[in-house]
Amino acid sequence: MKATFDALVEYGYAGLTIDRIDEFFPKSKSLLYHHYEGKDELLLDFLEHLIDEYEGGFGRDDEADAHERLTRILDGVADPKMDTGDVGFTRAIVELRAQAAHDPAYREHFTASGAFFRDRIAAVVRDGIEEGIFRDVDPDQVAAALHTLATGVMTERVTDGEAQIGAVRAELNAYVETRLLAEDR
Amino acid sequence: MKATFDALVEYGYAGLTIDRIDEFFPKSKSLLYHHYEGKDELLLDFLEHLIDEYEGGFGRDDEADAHERLTRILDGVADPKMDTGDVGFTRAIVELRAQAAHDPAYREHFTASGAFFRDRIAAVVRDGIEEGIFRDVDPDQVAAALHTLATGVMTERVTDGEAQIGAVRAELNAYVETRLLAEDR
Repeated sequence: MKATFDALVEYGYAGLTIDRIDEFFPKSKSLLYHHYEGKDELLLDFLEHLIDEYEGGFGRDDEADAHERLTRILDGVADPKMDTGDVGFTRAIVELRAQAAHDPAYREHFTASGAFFRDRIAAVVRDGIEEGIFRDVDPDQVAAALHTLATGVMTERVTDGEAQIGAVRAELNAYVETRLLAEDR
Repeated sequence: MKATFDALVEYGYAGLTIDRIDEFFPKSKSLLYHHYEGKDELLLDFLEHLIDEYEGGFGRDDEADAHERLTRILDGVADPKMDTGDVGFTRAIVELRAQAAHDPAYREHFTASGAFFRDRIAAVVRDGIEEGIFRDVDPDQVAAALHTLATGVMTERVTDGEAQIGAVRAELNAYVETRLLAEDR
């Protein structure tokens, strides 16, 4: 998985081959060919592993209240100064996501991952309502909008520019304040 | 341009060739090869023409107030029931945009088109502030967030699903109401 990640960052989706993944792979190449029929099968497995890594942590942090947990998610999503490695990773995910426009296997993955992230964001919003921090909004509706915005930020970061991401982050704060935070906060 | 559009909807970016564009082109194929060295050159010209088509109308409608003009933009962006042809077009744009992750010519286009749409949205917000309809928000900041959300909606529509787009549209209404509309509206 580490070799796939490194090769993706280096070559992008279009330039990726199993031979190039092998450049970063310490074990025998025959192992790669034994397990995977082609690069897409390996990449889909890679995407599944990514979701597994988010499984434990994303949106969950028992020490913090719902507002802090949401702020951490938004900071991660709309970070105005991402380091080079993370930008390379974002580029790879945007390219893999675009495969879903014509490839049902990728589409199935991104539909499932979208549902996962939306559910986690909705849970944070729901907790915030119960804690009296957030207003009585529809958690799923808020989560749908925030997830879509996150998809937009990732896409624009690598296809348009990073210049506007600071503005998006600031507007997200204004949104949280005017739409989500309870009057007396 | 019509032939390029039709071929893109039919074959997508990866399956597109000048020969396939020619299937939809009533004139001689040699004309296509005379004008364009390859499909990317033709596609970039196609994207420029798209922006030219938006030039006259997008965000401009002198009959309507700023709130109505913004609502029309949001209805266009987050339409929960898009017809098949428009979904095919969206799929094509998402695939072309993903080329920008590694191809500077596409990136230049999407940086310029992003600036164009953000400026137009900001102008509508600015008019709304002057008309006393909207609060005294930062028009560029609001436009950055709405443009990023639009990018997210287009991307998710063809790579995740349309199920959540109705929820996103509803949340956009809530955003306009709580963040933009002046207290006395």
